[in-house]
Amino acid sequence: MNEILITGFRVIDLRFPTSREHIGSDAVNKDPDYSAAYCVLETNAGLTGHGLTFTLGRGTDLVVQAAKYLSRYVVNRSLGSITDDLCAFSRQLTEDTQFRWLGPEKGVIHLAAGALINAVWDLYARVEKKPLWQLLSDLEPRHLLKAVDFRYIDDALSPDEAREILEQARSGKADRLARLKETGYPAYTTSVGWFGYSEEKIRRLCHEALAEGWTHFKLKVGGDPAEDLRRGRIVREEIGWTNKLMVDANQKWGVLEAIDRTRQLAELKPWWMEEPTNPDDILGHARIRHEVPAVRIATGEHCHNRVMFKQFLQAKALDVVQLDSCRVAGVNENLAILLLAAKFNTPVCPHAGGVGLCEYVQHLSMFDFLSVSTTMEDRVIEFVDHLHEHFVTPVHIRNGHYQVPSEAGYSIEIREESLNRFAYPQGEAWSGQA
Amino acid sequence: MNEILITGFRVIDLRFPTSREHIGSDAVNKDPDYSAAYCVLETNAGLTGHGLTFTLGRGTDLVVQAAKYLSRYVVNRSLGSITDDLCAFSRQLTEDTQFRWLGPEKGVIHLAAGALINAVWDLYARVEKKPLWQLLSDLEPRHLLKAVDFRYIDDALSPDEAREILEQARSGKADRLARLKETGYPAYTTSVGWFGYSEEKIRRLCHEALAEGWTHFKLKVGGDPAEDLRRGRIVREEIGWTNKLMVDANQKWGVLEAIDRTRQLAELKPWWMEEPTNPDDILGHARIRHEVPAVRIATGEHCHNRVMFKQFLQAKALDVVQLDSCRVAGVNENLAILLLAAKFNTPVCPHAGGVGLCEYVQHLSMFDFLSVSTTMEDRVIEFVDHLHEHFVTPVHIRNGHYQVPSEAGYSIEIREESLNRFAYPQGEAWSGQA
Repeated sequence: MNEILITGFRVIDLRFPTSREHIGSDAVNKDPDYSAAYCVLETNAGLTGHGLTFTLGRGTDLVVQAAKYLSRYVVNRSLGSITDDLCAFSRQLTEDTQFRWLGPEKGVIHLAAGALINAVWDLYARVEKKPLWQLLSDLEPRHLLKAVDFRYIDDALSPDEAREILEQARSGKADRLARLKETGYPAYTTSVGWFGYSEEKIRRLCHEALAEGWTHFKLKVGGDPAEDLRRGRIVREEIGWTNKLMVDANQKWGVLEAIDRTRQLAELKPWWMEEPTNPDDILGHARIRHEVPAVRIATGEHCHNRVMFKQFLQAKALDVVQLDSCRVAGVNENLAILLLAAKFNTPVCPHAGGVGLCEYVQHLSMFDFLSVSTTMEDRVIEFVDHLHEHFVTPVHIRNGHYQVPSEAGYSIEIREESLNRFAYPQGEAWSGQA
Repeated sequence: MNEILITGFRVIDLRFPTSREHIGSDAVNKDPDYSAAYCVLETNAGLTGHGLTFTLGRGTDLVVQAAKYLSRYVVNRSLGSITDDLCAFSRQLTEDTQFRWLGPEKGVIHLAAGALINAVWDLYARVEKKPLWQLLSDLEPRHLLKAVDFRYIDDALSPDEAREILEQARSGKADRLARLKETGYPAYTTSVGWFGYSEEKIRRLCHEALAEGWTHFKLKVGGDPAEDLRRGRIVREEIGWTNKLMVDANQKWGVLEAIDRTRQLAELKPWWMEEPTNPDDILGHARIRHEVPAVRIATGEHCHNRVMFKQFLQAKALDVVQLDSCRVAGVNENLAILLLAAKFNTPVCPHAGGVGLCEYVQHLSMFDFLSVSTTMEDRVIEFVDHLHEHFVTPVHIRNGHYQVPSEAGYSIEIREESLNRFAYPQGEAWSGQA
């Protein structure tokens, strides 16, 4: 590690014009252009480290600019000087004494920190010649915990408790790995029910998904109440009542409206209601959950750091932790979140889709199964079938399950030709656009 | 209003090299260069509107860039098209369908929205030829409430309840205004106890402050426990036990450590303990408050939106609401926060200092006294004696009280020569620096 020097950094404003086909449209995000601030770390060893943070188009330039600034904590360092104390490294990015005022640990600067920290882990895994899930699950608990920042969460999870969770999970790991390699990790599809899709398209996509072996389906809601129910009934007609249906309001409602609407949608017997209200509203989610006990509550894709997840768990405000791979400060902070969820016996079903989120989170969930929660019960990873063709090692789905990635790294490297074509604004996909 | 057209926008990256003299240093913010993204709206009427958001130096460029983008919702509009529906205007800035992903309503993009919304209010007040506090308190409740976004807070405060608060506060307003003009609004000084100051400097500053009529003093803590107590005893020796002393840890501690340290510092009989832990930790603050009932808990300068303040109040997590004039989305969101605080009978003591925060918040507190809470009991505005010389209409303090501003606007206009001198990086104050 110490002989590997990070010699260079580049970051690309990458935007895919997905809004042209209503891909990804929901009640709140009406016209997303799936985008990323994409970071590459260069080394003296020929290896590169890749990391991105997912965005929706406009504003990606802000994250790019923040990542450029934060790269000072990465470039001209040996990889070993980072991996020897990953918590200290993470704090350098999140506690820059002047940048910190713009957060702390939230928004643009935290998204940028996530991309950089993930790029370091990608490089680390490539040097170790392991996929990230394996690097993580091979690390000694003592070493792994050096990546976790317990500051501000030790009232809910002490380092000793975290170590105990990891130590207990060591038994049976080989069996779990064998099972994982045989079946893969269960997934659900969000591709059938975007907001902008017609009835005919929803029915066709449900048909196709069933034929491919999917058993868990997510529908976007948060529109006109009757229309939400109508679309939900269409999906139920197609998938039946044995398969699981989840609904997702993307933060559309206030707390009181969310309670009413969740009660109405209970007719569809949703497996969970996702983002019923504002993502900062811990007590609001707790109230919705308490007042509509028939429906499980899920949130997390906009939960901006471990302090917020800690409180969602303490307040019994959710049933499903939907961590995001790059909204928080990368792998480090997600280790904290996985351990918090385990402490509170709450399943983690990561947010995915977008650009690269599926590629990322498969590693986190597989590590969670092998080394933290030790179960796949009630756990599914989101899957959306968009943009995977741009990745060097895209996810591999079979029969509604993520297959175990075998290539070294964090699976997030994007093909050079895609980087060129979708670079904003100079890439071919954008030049000539207004 | 409809004949006033906003024709142009400029934004300046303004930085004051305060770190060279340890001004503003505390346990977390060790080397701030007090800075601002400073916005100017130009009109066809000769009038201009001014707004800034306060930052600590590096990263101000990100806020500048975000404000440039968001200015599309302001430029080439009549002022009337904005003031006719101020909530709709605010939502345009906070709910841009692609930018929103970078928040929502937090961090860099929310700071930028605050600067722009405040600039619009400054222009509005200038057109009405009133200082902002007077514009606000002269508006009919019905009209004023059109500026409040009740989305995500109506489970705690309904529009009807807010209107009731404003209606009830109409009686006695003339008497309160007379009293305010006579005494001013009470303030406290943070200038005596910054982290980097020597014992001799602390004693001298206390002496001077007492001579000027100050009765409320704030000390920065969060360093070595014995050293915090030593500095606190020095201040108590100088100011005695009748005057009020507040302590401020600037988020330094985890929840458990904060409980211990707050108990220790109780020896100093602090009037409040400010920011004992992470600003996102609603439940953590509630626990500290519950476990150390002898000391009142204050927080808010990093509380990023009305949804967070709502929960701090619902969870009984604080005794003092320290709203910030530009971390949230400007005057609009601060109206919501003042009304929430009134509903929960909790005093508001705004965060100030920095650049321009004193100039801003005097208007909010005076409006609060006239039209919302109707009392100055247990309420003080922070005052720090830095950088006021750069303002065209700086605050006027007499005998430890803010005097009522009489000039039209929001008092935030900075002198053109200061804009030139401290523009980053080209201004004279910076050129030649590394």
